[in-house]
Amino acid sequence: MPLRILLVGASGTIGRAVDAELASRHDVVRASANASELKIDVTDVASIERALDAAGPLDAVVSAVGEVAFAPLAQIEAAPLETSAYGVGLRSKLMGQVNLTLAARGRLRDGGSITLTTGVLACDPIVAGSSASMVNGALEAFVRAAAIELPRGLRINAVSPTVLTESMGAYGAFFRGFESVPAARVTLAYSRSVEGAQTGRIYTVV
Amino acid sequence: MPLRILLVGASGTIGRAVDAELASRHDVVRASANASELKIDVTDVASIERALDAAGPLDAVVSAVGEVAFAPLAQIEAAPLETSAYGVGLRSKLMGQVNLTLAARGRLRDGGSITLTTGVLACDPIVAGSSASMVNGALEAFVRAAAIELPRGLRINAVSPTVLTESMGAYGAFFRGFESVPAARVTLAYSRSVEGAQTGRIYTVV
Repeated sequence: MPLRILLVGASGTIGRAVDAELASRHDVVRASANASELKIDVTDVASIERALDAAGPLDAVVSAVGEVAFAPLAQIEAAPLETSAYGVGLRSKLMGQVNLTLAARGRLRDGGSITLTTGVLACDPIVAGSSASMVNGALEAFVRAAAIELPRGLRINAVSPTVLTESMGAYGAFFRGFESVPAARVTLAYSRSVEGAQTGRIYTVV
Repeated sequence: MPLRILLVGASGTIGRAVDAELASRHDVVRASANASELKIDVTDVASIERALDAAGPLDAVVSAVGEVAFAPLAQIEAAPLETSAYGVGLRSKLMGQVNLTLAARGRLRDGGSITLTTGVLACDPIVAGSSASMVNGALEAFVRAAAIELPRGLRINAVSPTVLTESMGAYGAFFRGFESVPAARVTLAYSRSVEGAQTGRIYTVV
């Protein structure tokens, strides 16, 4: 039976690939910052709630969304969260996905799933990537923790891809020596999270 | 030759044990929120900088500091960072220790070290501990990332202890079935970080 899935970040490189995979057998509702079907800004709780309300009853929420700032550590100064270079990632990729989880929790059908996106830098750092590492590490630990407390059989997992083949033009200089993966292969991990039965897992795709 | 070590969080359970271990062979300058020798509030960048300036030239900074809020996930609502239940941990234990690292970086002697404190919940969650998990996961990934970018041979590691035997009276109900470790055993990991030569390591003490 087809699942009703809200895909947040549907217009991104991962989002489009996940859409192609999941829409072949499920009912996918697309949300993104620049509006696919639904407009969503994950840094704004009211915007998250509006998108969830508009999506209606859901079996799964898949998030492939969130910004982080890349900057050499030497250029990052001690600063309050409000003005810190780390603030972008903490507000967008971390708390954006955490708030999406918390808001989706009450709206998902029993046994529904939440799938977030982290990334290889949690474990395998690169120069200028300390914010991405921090945020990805936070998300992976959050997923393990939330998994043991979600009610009604709800599940939560994360997908942690290495650099995408499709992104090597833009990011290749940061990821020299990394073996990239095509987005189509990364979508398998999202499929496994949504269509499988595990919870609290980090699906690493390298 | 004795090292000059700034110990932040010197009055806490871990801090006192680390003090006893390191002060037996090094020059320890103690800082804490309620003022040992130096007063420090790690949520306030100016306070961090004042404490570092007052401490003078340093070979090591050891941090055993930072608050997180414990709350059942069911009681945590989606909210902006400013009012989120996750804000306490992100501002104090995470950004407090990150800002201490960034501020200490320019003041440590060549080859000096920074040792932060995370905790077992990064990998092994408990009910009501999602904020601690998130923050500890973020710190561990930050340590791995910062290690490859720090200048002048500076090193950074983290110590990740399980629940302390000394804290079982207060926290035992959260950690049923966990084998606690005495603070004196945890201090070995701090010693290894400060007096060893590794960097980017998470010393787990379970």
